[in-house]
Amino acid sequence: MNATFDVLRKVTTATITTMLLKKGIRRCWMNGPKPLVFGGERIVGPAFTLRFVPAREDLATPESWAKPVSTRGAIEEMPEGCIAVADAMGVVSAGIFGDILTMRMKRRGVAALVTDGVVRDRVGVLASGLPVWSAGIAAPASVNGLTFVGWGEPIGCGGVAVFPGDVIVADEDGAVVIPQNLVEFAAHEGAQHELFESFIVSEVERGVKLPGLYPANEDTKARYETWKKNRR
Amino acid sequence: MNATFDVLRKVTTATITTMLLKKGIRRCWMNGPKPLVFGGERIVGPAFTLRFVPAREDLATPESWAKPVSTRGAIEEMPEGCIAVADAMGVVSAGIFGDILTMRMKRRGVAALVTDGVVRDRVGVLASGLPVWSAGIAAPASVNGLTFVGWGEPIGCGGVAVFPGDVIVADEDGAVVIPQNLVEFAAHEGAQHELFESFIVSEVERGVKLPGLYPANEDTKARYETWKKNRR
Amino acid sequence: MNATFDVLRKVTTATITTMLLKKGIRRCWMNGPKPLVFGGERIVGPAFTLRFVPAREDLATPESWAKPVSTRGAIEEMPEGCIAVADAMGVVSAGIFGDILTMRMKRRGVAALVTDGVVRDRVGVLASGLPVWSAGIAAPASVNGLTFVGWGEPIGCGGVAVFPGDVIVADEDGAVVIPQNLVEFAAHEGAQHELFESFIVSEVERGVKLPGLYPANEDTKARYETWKKNRR
Amino acid sequence: MNATFDVLRKVTTATITTMLLKKGIRRCWMNGPKPLVFGGERIVGPAFTLRFVPAREDLATPESWAKPVSTRGAIEEMPEGCIAVADAMGVVSAGIFGDILTMRMKRRGVAALVTDGVVRDRVGVLASGLPVWSAGIAAPASVNGLTFVGWGEPIGCGGVAVFPGDVIVADEDGAVVIPQNLVEFAAHEGAQHELFESFIVSEVERGVKLPGLYPANEDTKARYETWKKNRR
Amino acid sequence: MNATFDVLRKVTTATITTMLLKKGIRRCWMNGPKPLVFGGERIVGPAFTLRFVPAREDLATPESWAKPVSTRGAIEEMPEGCIAVADAMGVVSAGIFGDILTMRMKRRGVAALVTDGVVRDRVGVLASGLPVWSAGIAAPASVNGLTFVGWGEPIGCGGVAVFPGDVIVADEDGAVVIPQNLVEFAAHEGAQHELFESFIVSEVERGVKLPGLYPANEDTKARYETWKKNRR
Amino acid sequence: MNATFDVLRKVTTATITTMLLKKGIRRCWMNGPKPLVFGGERIVGPAFTLRFVPAREDLATPESWAKPVSTRGAIEEMPEGCIAVADAMGVVSAGIFGDILTMRMKRRGVAALVTDGVVRDRVGVLASGLPVWSAGIAAPASVNGLTFVGWGEPIGCGGVAVFPGDVIVADEDGAVVIPQNLVEFAAHEGAQHELFESFIVSEVERGVKLPGLYPANEDTKARYETWKKNRR
Repeated sequence: MNATFDVLRKVTTATITTMLLKKGIRRCWMNGPKPLVFGGERIVGPAFTLRFVPAREDLATPESWAKPVSTRGAIEEMPEGCIAVADAMGVVSAGIFGDILTMRMKRRGVAALVTDGVVRDRVGVLASGLPVWSAGIAAPASVNGLTFVGWGEPIGCGGVAVFPGDVIVADEDGAVVIPQNLVEFAAHEGAQHELFESFIVSEVERGVKLPGLYPANEDTKARYETWKKNRR
Repeated sequence: MNATFDVLRKVTTATITTMLLKKGIRRCWMNGPKPLVFGGERIVGPAFTLRFVPAREDLATPESWAKPVSTRGAIEEMPEGCIAVADAMGVVSAGIFGDILTMRMKRRGVAALVTDGVVRDRVGVLASGLPVWSAGIAAPASVNGLTFVGWGEPIGCGGVAVFPGDVIVADEDGAVVIPQNLVEFAAHEGAQHELFESFIVSEVERGVKLPGLYPANEDTKARYETWKKNRR
Repeated sequence: MNATFDVLRKVTTATITTMLLKKGIRRCWMNGPKPLVFGGERIVGPAFTLRFVPAREDLATPESWAKPVSTRGAIEEMPEGCIAVADAMGVVSAGIFGDILTMRMKRRGVAALVTDGVVRDRVGVLASGLPVWSAGIAAPASVNGLTFVGWGEPIGCGGVAVFPGDVIVADEDGAVVIPQNLVEFAAHEGAQHELFESFIVSEVERGVKLPGLYPANEDTKARYETWKKNRR
Repeated sequence: MNATFDVLRKVTTATITTMLLKKGIRRCWMNGPKPLVFGGERIVGPAFTLRFVPAREDLATPESWAKPVSTRGAIEEMPEGCIAVADAMGVVSAGIFGDILTMRMKRRGVAALVTDGVVRDRVGVLASGLPVWSAGIAAPASVNGLTFVGWGEPIGCGGVAVFPGDVIVADEDGAVVIPQNLVEFAAHEGAQHELFESFIVSEVERGVKLPGLYPANEDTKARYETWKKNRR
Repeated sequence: MNATFDVLRKVTTATITTMLLKKGIRRCWMNGPKPLVFGGERIVGPAFTLRFVPAREDLATPESWAKPVSTRGAIEEMPEGCIAVADAMGVVSAGIFGDILTMRMKRRGVAALVTDGVVRDRVGVLASGLPVWSAGIAAPASVNGLTFVGWGEPIGCGGVAVFPGDVIVADEDGAVVIPQNLVEFAAHEGAQHELFESFIVSEVERGVKLPGLYPANEDTKARYETWKKNRR
Repeated sequence: MNATFDVLRKVTTATITTMLLKKGIRRCWMNGPKPLVFGGERIVGPAFTLRFVPAREDLATPESWAKPVSTRGAIEEMPEGCIAVADAMGVVSAGIFGDILTMRMKRRGVAALVTDGVVRDRVGVLASGLPVWSAGIAAPASVNGLTFVGWGEPIGCGGVAVFPGDVIVADEDGAVVIPQNLVEFAAHEGAQHELFESFIVSEVERGVKLPGLYPANEDTKARYETWKKNRR
């Protein structure tokens, strides 16, 4: 999988969505998670899912943080290199994690946190160095609006289904999920597509019109083959 | 529990929310489920939870209906007298159940269906006789927008947490969840409150002003004690 | 004012919005309040405003109902014939009033309740006989989501400004506010417009095409004058 | 086409969405249009599209109603039996049509009006007898929030694309669009499906469990073939 | 027009909205489009409109990009100096354009892209140098949620109507549309207003109180006249 | 109060929400106001409330800016060090204040502006130096969507109640309100909590696992006591 991940790290999330559309999958991009700051690297990793339900005052309390089924417990189960994906039901008024938890995740080698909810302690989370894609920031803790109920389950996040073992790719355009059985396809077909788009960019740079170029007609395809040979 | 349920059947959901507020619980009424038609009876029963995540084109297909983890499988597990509560994430463009499934639920003795999503086949669902609280109606099947992932789990529904074993009460004001350990309290304190409100109604009918009456001051409380004795 | 109100009772809210548009006013129809049941009469009356802010757990408690600034206190100040207009900020998860309060309002001669929030105790509110325009129904009490802060103030309701003394008209198309200084205009110009539309309806019934008819060209206007004379 | 329409009149919109899903089409049900009143018949007809853009105060005036490109002009172009489908961009605070226009549409033989916006003059529109599917009711006229720009164009309505010549079916579950080239398929395959569901209903009535029944396994399919023979 | 555009480049969108309000126009600022990055220049140009409707799986495919009515075809029709304004119905889960298309637009001399939808390939779009005002960023291509249907038509964008030939001004406060016949007025009255506000700023800097200053009373107006003379 | 404010300036809004939760208060963080730019200091001050209702065309005009009850009048009443909190009902299409008003506020020593609405003249507002937390930016003036009705009243802002005299704290995580009688508690308990979190951070840095650490078990508490002694 590592070699495939290396390939995927060079494929944009935009290209991945186009590859998945070829397989009939339109619902793969999460509507909500955005990078906390721009300028970071593209992150690739297997999904480690987290699930929240709404808060109920008798359950969602600071005391609940010490229970076995807690965000703390979940973090200690995260394998190195995974991307934690949290279903916060799009709630934007309670931060699922703050600086201490993201510090610990970074320490454990977690690759990134992706959520359709929000984080808290913006300054501290940035300082922790953990790349975060979220729907924003809020001051209150998760218990203010959410109850944590488990990890490793199928979840929804930003309007798409995420299953444990699916692969997540996240960059400045947001986060996409690749179904486990399409990872190889998305990586290799995606890499080909990136190469093709490099050619198209060079064509646009020299002033070629779009119709016939992109999508490519036979003539463009022929020029692409020549271009590929010449660049070797 | 049956005796308690008999008491609860005479307590409005409005009163139940007020009783739970006394215990610090504000998040117990589901925002979304409404009765499909008005005029039915109040329904009380233990929650049987169902959980959906968003559709993904490779998973949410008519073929998936034959899988072991399917809405069909779930229905056959529902105990008599339960209220099925379905977390549809508030999706209103895909009906979680249609007439055939509600017919089967009715046949199995399910007391009601409550969801923050919608149902399809309005005419047939009404004909099935199963009381339904939903966020409306849509023509498409669940697979058009949702993937069913399991039953008997903690869920969110209409912005509140529902755990298996919690008790649901639903009437014209919608549906509320009572945490398992507060069911006795809500029933008996609620019944007292209903009696008190009957007295208040009779006072308003004879023209008494609200301040001092509701909430009751000492004088009102005394009149209430007298009223209670006299009605025996 | 009573004579003007009698005229307004025969002018639809649809027509009133068209009359106000002639004066440059587009924001007069409240987006949110709908009749609790269809089939009632058109209601006209001066606005008695009520204002809520969001709940805060230390303020919005059942105990607060006994404070001088309470919904109970406000109701006892409502003059006969007024329409209570409540700014609930569009909150649909906490009922501003239930059956006891609407019973008392009816008893005091309040003409109607209009709100961009919701009511609770649907069955009891209907039984009280008070006409209600709301954004729906919820079981929880106001304190579950709202804090009452006063009456007789300028408010927003359903996206429009309402000032004490403005006139409210409500029918099956919802509720509109008429600025105090435009009430006479809206009533009398509106009544003329209703008469004109009766003529148009009769023309459509006999198969006249719309262009030239509505809006009316010179020929149509002439026919209208004849029609008016003949009906006397 | 008339024979096909007769078939479609017996196929529910729920079934049509399932048939279109077999062809990979998930986006065919309009999220927004609901019947103004329940209890009417299923309506089938070719789409006659209408398009609105937002109001601009210099354009959206009562005077604009007399322009050649006006809702009035559009109505006079509607062929008998068509279903007018209006893209109101989901605006719910300005009624696209009122009683006079729906009267004229009815008079011209228009089969129904479907919109993701709202209508005004609820009482009058119902009296006109034109079946209406809308997102509700508002008092203000279209010019209060919308500018009419044309008919016979591709439009969006309730989140789906509608092209002139597509076929619309509307019933209590809402309105669906069938792409022109799939109308025969949807009608005939849909009618088969309705027959099959009649059999399933009879099976559920006699207590058959869902797994293996719906979706049908080989045994169920065999019983269905027998059932079909016997009912002839 | 070029001279007028030069004037407009020094008038803020904030001032333009105030000028248009003097003419009764409130709906001119697009709610949605924001600059992709802050710090760019104010852009002025005539609107070149683009229109999308929702995706339907049989129409919105990568193959559709090669059709004559395609975004590619539209781009080749854009005149130098125009501002492309795309009605994406506020859809934020499918990017209408990515880097290749914005590169080509830049190459053709298009001044800017404004949309109530989103773009994809953030890094590449920024590299193309085309100024973009959008409602954000998404990875999926337009066909994932949208079908392109034409250019040069009246559209809605961000809640306002835009007609071909209207003038667009965009800066850090967003994008406004000026109706064609008010462009001269907005430019010259706006420039006067900017000068007046420079005076007001200098007055605030020296500690003058707001009442009487802004809006200006007679005394302030006199001081302004003196200030204007002195600065010449 | 000044000493308490100095303490609060070192307590994050995240910590304050946790302290208030200990007192049963969950609704204290405003959903909407975000810093106009990141990187500024935490601001603390007593709330000076401002209230808007929706615009009505006869009231919300540039002329209204000269009335005694105007935003201008309100600004001149703001005491030094206060934080202006404006209830704009979440309206994001009309800027409540622009550069001239924020300049004047800065000049008067106002500490910050917090609103669930938006500001206009982004460049000028930033130049004024007044720290602003808002829901974004828009070009139109307040009168385009709002009518100012008063100051010093209870308001709602971002879903929470704010009373004059409450204390506001705002930082990169947004703005929170502290009820007047809990200010001392929040400050001093909050400062203790910040110290404790510094210890936890150092523990996470040296690789301690979360369970038992945060929340702290007896062993962690003991280590904390030692850590506190050693740092003196």
